[in-house]
Amino acid sequence: MGSIFGKLFTAATFGESHGAAVGVVVDGCPSGLELGVEDIQHALERRRPGQSAITTTRDETDKAEILSGLYQGKTLGTPIAILVRNKDARPGAYDEIAKTYRPSHADYTYEAKYGLRDPNGGGRASARETVGRVAAGAIAQKLLVAQGIEIRAYVERVHDISLPTDYDAFPSISQVDQTPVRCPDEDTAKRMIERIEQIRSEGDSVGGVIVLRARGVPAGLGEPVFDRLNADLAKAIFSIPAVKGVEVGSGFSASLMKGSEHNDAFYCEKKKVRTLTNHSGGIQGGISNGEEIVLRCAFKPTATIFQPQQTVTADCQPMTLVSKGRHDPCVVPRAVPIVEAMAALVLADHWMRQKAQRESFCK
Amino acid sequence: MGSIFGKLFTAATFGESHGAAVGVVVDGCPSGLELGVEDIQHALERRRPGQSAITTTRDETDKAEILSGLYQGKTLGTPIAILVRNKDARPGAYDEIAKTYRPSHADYTYEAKYGLRDPNGGGRASARETVGRVAAGAIAQKLLVAQGIEIRAYVERVHDISLPTDYDAFPSISQVDQTPVRCPDEDTAKRMIERIEQIRSEGDSVGGVIVLRARGVPAGLGEPVFDRLNADLAKAIFSIPAVKGVEVGSGFSASLMKGSEHNDAFYCEKKKVRTLTNHSGGIQGGISNGEEIVLRCAFKPTATIFQPQQTVTADCQPMTLVSKGRHDPCVVPRAVPIVEAMAALVLADHWMRQKAQRESFCK
Amino acid sequence: MGSIFGKLFTAATFGESHGAAVGVVVDGCPSGLELGVEDIQHALERRRPGQSAITTTRDETDKAEILSGLYQGKTLGTPIAILVRNKDARPGAYDEIAKTYRPSHADYTYEAKYGLRDPNGGGRASARETVGRVAAGAIAQKLLVAQGIEIRAYVERVHDISLPTDYDAFPSISQVDQTPVRCPDEDTAKRMIERIEQIRSEGDSVGGVIVLRARGVPAGLGEPVFDRLNADLAKAIFSIPAVKGVEVGSGFSASLMKGSEHNDAFYCEKKKVRTLTNHSGGIQGGISNGEEIVLRCAFKPTATIFQPQQTVTADCQPMTLVSKGRHDPCVVPRAVPIVEAMAALVLADHWMRQKAQRESFCK
Amino acid sequence: MGSIFGKLFTAATFGESHGAAVGVVVDGCPSGLELGVEDIQHALERRRPGQSAITTTRDETDKAEILSGLYQGKTLGTPIAILVRNKDARPGAYDEIAKTYRPSHADYTYEAKYGLRDPNGGGRASARETVGRVAAGAIAQKLLVAQGIEIRAYVERVHDISLPTDYDAFPSISQVDQTPVRCPDEDTAKRMIERIEQIRSEGDSVGGVIVLRARGVPAGLGEPVFDRLNADLAKAIFSIPAVKGVEVGSGFSASLMKGSEHNDAFYCEKKKVRTLTNHSGGIQGGISNGEEIVLRCAFKPTATIFQPQQTVTADCQPMTLVSKGRHDPCVVPRAVPIVEAMAALVLADHWMRQKAQRESFCK
Repeated sequence: MGSIFGKLFTAATFGESHGAAVGVVVDGCPSGLELGVEDIQHALERRRPGQSAITTTRDETDKAEILSGLYQGKTLGTPIAILVRNKDARPGAYDEIAKTYRPSHADYTYEAKYGLRDPNGGGRASARETVGRVAAGAIAQKLLVAQGIEIRAYVERVHDISLPTDYDAFPSISQVDQTPVRCPDEDTAKRMIERIEQIRSEGDSVGGVIVLRARGVPAGLGEPVFDRLNADLAKAIFSIPAVKGVEVGSGFSASLMKGSEHNDAFYCEKKKVRTLTNHSGGIQGGISNGEEIVLRCAFKPTATIFQPQQTVTADCQPMTLVSKGRHDPCVVPRAVPIVEAMAALVLADHWMRQKAQRESFCK
Repeated sequence: MGSIFGKLFTAATFGESHGAAVGVVVDGCPSGLELGVEDIQHALERRRPGQSAITTTRDETDKAEILSGLYQGKTLGTPIAILVRNKDARPGAYDEIAKTYRPSHADYTYEAKYGLRDPNGGGRASARETVGRVAAGAIAQKLLVAQGIEIRAYVERVHDISLPTDYDAFPSISQVDQTPVRCPDEDTAKRMIERIEQIRSEGDSVGGVIVLRARGVPAGLGEPVFDRLNADLAKAIFSIPAVKGVEVGSGFSASLMKGSEHNDAFYCEKKKVRTLTNHSGGIQGGISNGEEIVLRCAFKPTATIFQPQQTVTADCQPMTLVSKGRHDPCVVPRAVPIVEAMAALVLADHWMRQKAQRESFCK
Repeated sequence: MGSIFGKLFTAATFGESHGAAVGVVVDGCPSGLELGVEDIQHALERRRPGQSAITTTRDETDKAEILSGLYQGKTLGTPIAILVRNKDARPGAYDEIAKTYRPSHADYTYEAKYGLRDPNGGGRASARETVGRVAAGAIAQKLLVAQGIEIRAYVERVHDISLPTDYDAFPSISQVDQTPVRCPDEDTAKRMIERIEQIRSEGDSVGGVIVLRARGVPAGLGEPVFDRLNADLAKAIFSIPAVKGVEVGSGFSASLMKGSEHNDAFYCEKKKVRTLTNHSGGIQGGISNGEEIVLRCAFKPTATIFQPQQTVTADCQPMTLVSKGRHDPCVVPRAVPIVEAMAALVLADHWMRQKAQRESFCK
Repeated sequence: MGSIFGKLFTAATFGESHGAAVGVVVDGCPSGLELGVEDIQHALERRRPGQSAITTTRDETDKAEILSGLYQGKTLGTPIAILVRNKDARPGAYDEIAKTYRPSHADYTYEAKYGLRDPNGGGRASARETVGRVAAGAIAQKLLVAQGIEIRAYVERVHDISLPTDYDAFPSISQVDQTPVRCPDEDTAKRMIERIEQIRSEGDSVGGVIVLRARGVPAGLGEPVFDRLNADLAKAIFSIPAVKGVEVGSGFSASLMKGSEHNDAFYCEKKKVRTLTNHSGGIQGGISNGEEIVLRCAFKPTATIFQPQQTVTADCQPMTLVSKGRHDPCVVPRAVPIVEAMAALVLADHWMRQKAQRESFCK
């Protein structure tokens, strides 16, 4: 239960980390959209492990196969199933921790919930599950780009190393991807990479912050009162492993401002209503206002570290755990395409919802 | 669209600020729960306006009527409809702003979305809509209390005035409500009230931070991978007007910690698995782990201020707006029961979902 | 659980037969639709009891109040709540059957499901619940009429008295309503009324068959593979109390035909694809084909009869039940507007779904 | 849109007739259920083509692969993805009908809905899509059998050849499958097969009627008022290609009976409430009453026939179609496991819903 996302544009992911495959079934994508396996593959490349010295060494080619929903290069309007075989799965490599709860992993909670768990690589709790999300997100992004909507995520902070506070560009995807840490400022990126390498050498891990921006979003997306655009984006981002916080627009800093400082004054530009500032982050009353959507999310440090840790076994015996295996010392760079994918799923869904209601959104 | 919350335990709210009534239909509440109108009324009292010098002077008695779903003091398992008439509605009082977009309100976005809007008090965008949520939340809380689950929210910060950082009690409801600002520390509360009064005298407004805690939550609630408990809580809280950020457990500060600092070590207490620290905020892998659930949310300053503001009319003419009317200079204290209500709706829903799956949750 | 119908255009009904009120919250109706309480009232008049000698004598004025969702005569796009007070409720009149299970009523099953029940008039199992459906359906029909879609139901058969088999008009609403039995053929109607009166004089009851037709439905509504238009219509109609069977187009008789007899040959009329026959009932592959939608549904005889019946008490004691109270000897005539309402809810929902997907449906 | 079935126990099917694969993702199956690929395979064998002289000659081995959701022979509680490759696909074999609408097929309506279609074997409209349903249904049936619930479907009528009217056994699966026509009475089966062979020799097709029975269903399943057990079963069955009618219990014949004939008198048997007759078909007020659930469904004759038919091309030119290809002259026998699968999905879903609400259903 809980592995289906969206109301009209839906993504149903499946797969365990070291099972036969991971993937997704997208139902509700409109017909007639040009789509090829290369669109999926390109997105998966950005997410896949083994890309650089600062990520896990697990080697997955992550070749996507589209099983259904396409005909002569276009979507049919029927479910699009995408399959990615697990190649570098090592079931059995986790036997020794099958009866131990790794700190700040989901071992204990999965067992509490289900009564059993797949210990191999965390099973379904592994970030490998996000392969399906990224594949689905690639389809959603294709749909959104055709509407003039552009989504971009990048790393703003790793540990305490941040982008300059005056950074305000909407970076291109190549600017983001120019370094493996996915921070669009070259100098900051260099220092982030150094920090990650240093932390790794200590057998430790770090977290960071990702910024998500979307431009070209028309005013009117989002459904009061529960399915607000900010609420659905927050749920989407919080569903990504390791996320601990989400801010929209001014976020927590809003609580330190007065109304006279925080309010976004309206003005008109070429007969279009605009705001002078964007503390609202592009969303007012849960509905997009046509300004850039801006969202920040915080990731905790990777739970797997290579230092001895106190924990317990399934039968409540204390023990000292020393982890082995392959893990990212910092998941933040690889989370960038996942954040984009989740945002794309939300925006595609709300775009369709609004079309269902308003003639003017149909054009 | 979007006014129904929940999957099994659902709340469908209705009503505009200055329309005939507001209310809610709760569908999915199990049968046999003892419930009376006083349970609803008690919760509404905590939310209603006109409670103190620091809130709006709108005078609503907020008398709830239960229209259905009860028989001889118990829930029937059928929909529970609750009606609250608007008494102090003043339709017409907003005529002058019917064609003006108030900064950082939802006037413009509602009009962009729907093509028309009810200008009276913000219509459906008004916080008055939350009456229905609080009524539904009262039923959910009754259900949860019977399971030993306790939910508490309180004000941690107003503007830059905070609870002492070492505050770590789980306050009683009377400790929270002993001051109108709903901060459980008397000295801090006093300074918060002073700040709000000062800000109000300036015709300005402020925001703040609310902490939500839940104890007695059994391990196992939350559905990987999209309907994680933290994700559903985040959506619920972000659906409350004026919320700009949500953190679970360590939140944004997690991104400044190393894994060796952040991981919550496991130990056993009376054969029960516990964690030494609670950076996870009671949720791991999207599933409750039996520790206290801890969440923080940031509220922006009230959008209505009594200083002149630049804005535009619906036909894009610039104008200076000077607001009149009745508004809270700080919505945070009155948001406390709303935060509790939304958390209760999420937990009741997930409790039922888990019961559907596991025999062991049925006892 | 289960009292919310629809995916985009949703209706959440509430209320017990002898509780304070019945009603509905419609969420998802597009904004800008002209709507007044008279639209609702007109539909309720067709459903309400006490209309003629062949219906129950329960006297309900069924005055509807619209509590929300309208502004200056138009829908806001927000939830539309409609309230109808129960006036002629007689709680207590059912005390003697509170511990007895009436044959073919829902007394036993409600108790088995919920562990308790409201015995007054069947509580939620009463057809009085359909007040909310008819109110919601009136809104849906208003929306559909604006798209050129017309829905009509009428009584085809009462007991063994049928419309002539060659009847093939699409009757006007006044032709349907010209007699209390709602059969558009005057002579047949007269014989039906005589039969119902005779059966009532015996303290007995009868059922019958209603035909539903919809014209002006564009080709393209219905979602393969589970949410087919015929499947959603069947669910909608089967959710009406006393329905025992549903046929679309040729129905059960299809099973007696050969493919060469049953297939609907295509031809073109003014560049529009048409079929020569309509055994498909306007739906092929679960999608409307532009021909008239035709559906038949069978109603069982009213469960309440005034002859002695064998049954048991809640503690399994055999007893003889002699019913009192006010009941329709034949529910079929009053079910006509309910069938129309449910069909309207399905068609409005699917119209919106299709708009979400296809540009060409937006015009 | 529309390819996901169920609320808690969900099945999301995918795949076109001549695409790469068909399959399903089941989300919501409880953890700890023993399941192997042989459970799926066994069910698929009953559905697959090429089983006998009276079915299509398309030769599909229909080998299922379980991609996720299992660990050491038990369900994990996570999504179970099942993949079946199309082996005997012949894309291209349908080129000549790519621009022609086959009568009573979904060619025209798919094109009207989506603006394009996959002509190969009907694409998604093909009964091949039901492979995913049968796989999902096998899991649901495994769950139900563990609760003592048994589901059985069989052929009651082919064209005008019927089971003896006094047939009232609950046949074993081997009795059903002893002949390829799946009628449990040997003599009737023989005559049905003769009829199908004769009809096929004429290049024609026939339909028929399937009976579905379920025993061991506890009283209490089904959700008033819209998600009634009969309503959800009707939707499920009507979602199967070629179904034109559904009856529960007495069905259409109920409309010919008086209440005094139709009502099911209650009595007690070993402290359990029973009914003397079962016109209700095991469901009263939309809720199971513990008696056998009985449902009938009518199938139209296969749309593909081998006689010349009048139709039109996509550009509205009249033409005479002479079909080629491989098709069942009567789909009814192969629909038997599909009917069982859909019923199992509904019952598993409602079982979980009821568990979510009632403690007593947890044992």
